[in-house]
Amino acid sequence: MVTLDQIYHASYVLRDVARKTDMIEAAALSSLTDCSLFLKTENLQLTGSFKLRGAYYKISKLSEEQRKAGILACSAGNHAQGVALAASRAGLRAVICMPDGAPMTKVEATKGFGAEVVLVKGGYDDAYAHACRLRNETGMTFIHPFDDDEVIAGQGTIGLEILDQLPDVDIVLVPVGGGGLLSGVAYAIKSLNPKVKVFGVQAENAASMQRSLQAGTPLTLERAGTFADGIAVRHPGERTFAMCRQWADGILTVTEDEIAAAILALMEKQKMIAEGAGAVGLAAVLAKKLDTQGKKVCCLISGGNIDVNILSRVVTRGLMTTGRRVTLQIALEDKPGQLVDVSRIVADCGANVISVVHNIGNAGTAVTSCTLTLGLETRDAAQIAEIRQKLGEAGFELVE
Amino acid sequence: MVTLDQIYHASYVLRDVARKTDMIEAAALSSLTDCSLFLKTENLQLTGSFKLRGAYYKISKLSEEQRKAGILACSAGNHAQGVALAASRAGLRAVICMPDGAPMTKVEATKGFGAEVVLVKGGYDDAYAHACRLRNETGMTFIHPFDDDEVIAGQGTIGLEILDQLPDVDIVLVPVGGGGLLSGVAYAIKSLNPKVKVFGVQAENAASMQRSLQAGTPLTLERAGTFADGIAVRHPGERTFAMCRQWADGILTVTEDEIAAAILALMEKQKMIAEGAGAVGLAAVLAKKLDTQGKKVCCLISGGNIDVNILSRVVTRGLMTTGRRVTLQIALEDKPGQLVDVSRIVADCGANVISVVHNIGNAGTAVTSCTLTLGLETRDAAQIAEIRQKLGEAGFELVE
Repeated sequence: MVTLDQIYHASYVLRDVARKTDMIEAAALSSLTDCSLFLKTENLQLTGSFKLRGAYYKISKLSEEQRKAGILACSAGNHAQGVALAASRAGLRAVICMPDGAPMTKVEATKGFGAEVVLVKGGYDDAYAHACRLRNETGMTFIHPFDDDEVIAGQGTIGLEILDQLPDVDIVLVPVGGGGLLSGVAYAIKSLNPKVKVFGVQAENAASMQRSLQAGTPLTLERAGTFADGIAVRHPGERTFAMCRQWADGILTVTEDEIAAAILALMEKQKMIAEGAGAVGLAAVLAKKLDTQGKKVCCLISGGNIDVNILSRVVTRGLMTTGRRVTLQIALEDKPGQLVDVSRIVADCGANVISVVHNIGNAGTAVTSCTLTLGLETRDAAQIAEIRQKLGEAGFELVE
Repeated sequence: MVTLDQIYHASYVLRDVARKTDMIEAAALSSLTDCSLFLKTENLQLTGSFKLRGAYYKISKLSEEQRKAGILACSAGNHAQGVALAASRAGLRAVICMPDGAPMTKVEATKGFGAEVVLVKGGYDDAYAHACRLRNETGMTFIHPFDDDEVIAGQGTIGLEILDQLPDVDIVLVPVGGGGLLSGVAYAIKSLNPKVKVFGVQAENAASMQRSLQAGTPLTLERAGTFADGIAVRHPGERTFAMCRQWADGILTVTEDEIAAAILALMEKQKMIAEGAGAVGLAAVLAKKLDTQGKKVCCLISGGNIDVNILSRVVTRGLMTTGRRVTLQIALEDKPGQLVDVSRIVADCGANVISVVHNIGNAGTAVTSCTLTLGLETRDAAQIAEIRQKLGEAGFELVE
């Protein structure tokens, strides 16, 4: 069982290893809400997520014999990097099993923190099976990503820091995958100040903890279909299920689009990168999934390790939904000078062309006509409307 | 003349208005260098840049009569937002003149901080001329963005914080546009600890301070051609020129590509957004523009207000240079099944298709052939090489 004592002890053990991450008042984001918003920035933690805390505290409690045998973990993500750095700080050998499709950047980062990486053919389950075999063969200690008292106590140190940095906080929002972070944070905060509300937040398509709490028993989802890979967990832990049931005030869910919008808002307004998992708390506030009026709200930004390809898509999608990028399809007559006219109208409106595709003879257009597809950088929706209108006035037909 | 007294006073005045921004140890970035790297995160300052400091301190020194008349500024960028928030915190009326082409996001942000915005037709010089007219007509006080003792003293408070947060720092790198930030920071640091090296960093295409120091007199550049708009200044101030000459250890320059690479590195490794101006210090370290071996180096990340369209381009360019996105042009014979074969090879290699353009009858290809342009998300350069090789083995010709 996790005790407050243990969390205080973890806090002491972690003092020279983990950063006491900044609590940032998100003034620019608060203006989009009816509350006063603060961010606990574990995305700026060493290794880019909170996972270092639990892993290091767990390792610090191993016996001398266990330390000599070394440690094992299985993860394609933040847990891998957290364990790797924790082990190298503690001077232990660490072996991390990863599925062979894991992004090279994550493999390299894990190696960079000093761990040995074993790439296992297949998915997470195959890597996990391999790690179990290794444990049986070698006697190394397996570090579970969430369902472990000492791991939970390590994550709980964030709860102590939140109360220290923002003593009059009303609501704390915590991302939930397996539930280790919520268990530790909710327990620490509620034990010290039961008046603070602590909610978990999951992706709607991977709401294993929410569904399990509703059912009163841990359930396994068939799939966890979210781009927030850090919380794509199909089954909560036994310990974490019990702790979340006892200490959390509830679990909220957010959609993929709400997560993407929150990531973009964090980038634009607060100049910070969050991964999908890290942004769900803010997503819940921005999408008004709970009553925050006049409250002091702290969103725990749990990590920032997002693949840049995915980030690039999130940005592009955000630009389109906010009127700063648009693709126009224009039907042209197949005669000279048409491209000049269109280009001039676009330029006069002050928009910037970023792509041009000019196709003749599509099905659905007359034989003498062709289609021009223009990608534009624009200022806002009003500018797009102006361009559409001016093209229309000049006789060009926009294909919707 | 700026005095250390003034900077300490500014620090006191700013204590409840500006954030004492975090000093972050950039462990993940340090591994790319031979030094121990720290970031002073003024991109996480309120308004997204350091400009609030100088503006607020300047305003705090105005007479009662001046306060009643209100203040004026001219800016399309960070100074506008800094002045706007400073004025609203001080309870003053502020009018900001901006060129009418300024991005809507910046206009809205400036209004959001409580200022009145006057959009002036034309560029910066037109907006400046309009502001001067307004000053003469109304008696409002004009807040210069850099060439002002109190503004410089306000920015200098960052120097005090750096010495407080990192007492054994060896080298501090400071972005330079007009030179207000470098003047204040170099003066504060050198006055207290002359052993610390303080360098300014400019964009190679806008190196007005560097060129002026070389010439021994303030020069005006014909143009300042950098995407780092926060430091695109053609002429240093008189005061700032004199102070930088006396206190800074030199000015380094970086290229546009080096700035872009630094922005991407900050995003990927440290989960933070910097604007171009904010990233030049880090760019200088990563591009080895100075000897940092074994040193404690602090890069002042001056701001994070980058247009998302530009950020999106920086990301795309970075993905391409690091092998995570590629465009392949493949010559196909014009017969059925070719697209299937290519698609299968790409899929078998594990790459992800993000765009397809299939064109028949380009000049330069045989009449019976056509060109397929494929945009791919890839893992790394090795994966791209594998795809190229397998396509070649299958008889497809890649157009370089």
